Amino acid sequence: MKNKIPPGGYIGPAPVVLVGANVKGKANFTAIGWSGAVEHFPPLVYISSNQIHHNNVGIKENQTFSINIPSEEMAEITDYCGIASGRKVDKASLFDVFYGELETAPMIHEAPINMECKVIHIVDTTEISSAKHGHDIFIGEVIQAYCEEKYLTNGAPDITKMKFMALASTEKNKLFYWGLGEQIGRAFNIGLKYRKTRKGS
Amino acid sequence: MKNKIPPGGYIGPAPVVLVGANVKGKANFTAIGWSGAVEHFPPLVYISSNQIHHNNVGIKENQTFSINIPSEEMAEITDYCGIASGRKVDKASLFDVFYGELETAPMIHEAPINMECKVIHIVDTTEISSAKHGHDIFIGEVIQAYCEEKYLTNGAPDITKMKFMALASTEKNKLFYWGLGEQIGRAFNIGLKYRKTRKGS
Repeated sequence: MKNKIPPGGYIGPAPVVLVGANVKGKANFTAIGWSGAVEHFPPLVYISSNQIHHNNVGIKENQTFSINIPSEEMAEITDYCGIASGRKVDKASLFDVFYGELETAPMIHEAPINMECKVIHIVDTTEISSAKHGHDIFIGEVIQAYCEEKYLTNGAPDITKMKFMALASTEKNKLFYWGLGEQIGRAFNIGLKYRKTRKGS
Repeated sequence: MKNKIPPGGYIGPAPVVLVGANVKGKANFTAIGWSGAVEHFPPLVYISSNQIHHNNVGIKENQTFSINIPSEEMAEITDYCGIASGRKVDKASLFDVFYGELETAPMIHEAPINMECKVIHIVDTTEISSAKHGHDIFIGEVIQAYCEEKYLTNGAPDITKMKFMALASTEKNKLFYWGLGEQIGRAFNIGLKYRKTRKGS
């Protein structure tokens, strides 16, 4: 028996990223729980960032941002970046910051992966819905990505080496960071076994 | 030393969902690795779905879709839904299908959570980028959500009971489903400890 539960965006687990922007010429970072990919070629990604964030001002000014994915070891500092506002705290001082080709998208050296992105489209949720306190959905093209050798397997990033976190809740207002657990199966592969079983039945 | 790696949407781990749509009056489902939330109030979510998908036709026709999140036990059938096309296979027959308030968004009884969504905005990636083989980014408002009692803790969905999967790769073209592992810390909480340490230093 299915219960109706309050309408909500119960999609998870969600990736955890630190978004970088230059705000008034200074590097700033905020933790974002709403991000993901939207296209392969060219590689397009999205972040949905609360309009109260200091970061949004800088992203709009420069039309650039960075996505930095923290490892498990960076859990506390990542969470701190989600609590403290760049209006009050100098978050650039927390990290070893570097810039790439876009020149205005600050990146975090300590994060296993960095992507510098050029804004190609913005959707303001107050313009498409009844939202009063809105989010800017920034869609960016990844212009360049960076990763240390130690996190790569055959030249590509390896999740088992980078140890990314995921966000998911156990009940209302109890949101946690989680590590990844057991490998369940390979994508575009274990379904073939299911198809075989089905045909044999 | 940071290496430049090919530009890509290296955001992970990503949630795994089954998207439902009525295509020419018949329920169809496809596995999607690109989904997430974009707004709290009202609850807005996105999926980015390859324009070759049979599903997209139905979503555009009815302006509705559903998001069903499978548990670990559903890994093979989920993957199968990502491999087989609704043009050739009757995917409605794989599940116990039900409909809710929107009437045209088929949902999967076996999936721990179901959200029925009304399309409020569509972004076609071929219109905002150089993409040749595009994706439709469907932004939907969650009108109603469903979850069995056994998956709830104090009335809200509990990730430890639902056992959702996450997608992440270990190298190029080696994408896997993973279970969640250890709890690392509570969000909007463990950063307070970091702030305290910092002030004390």
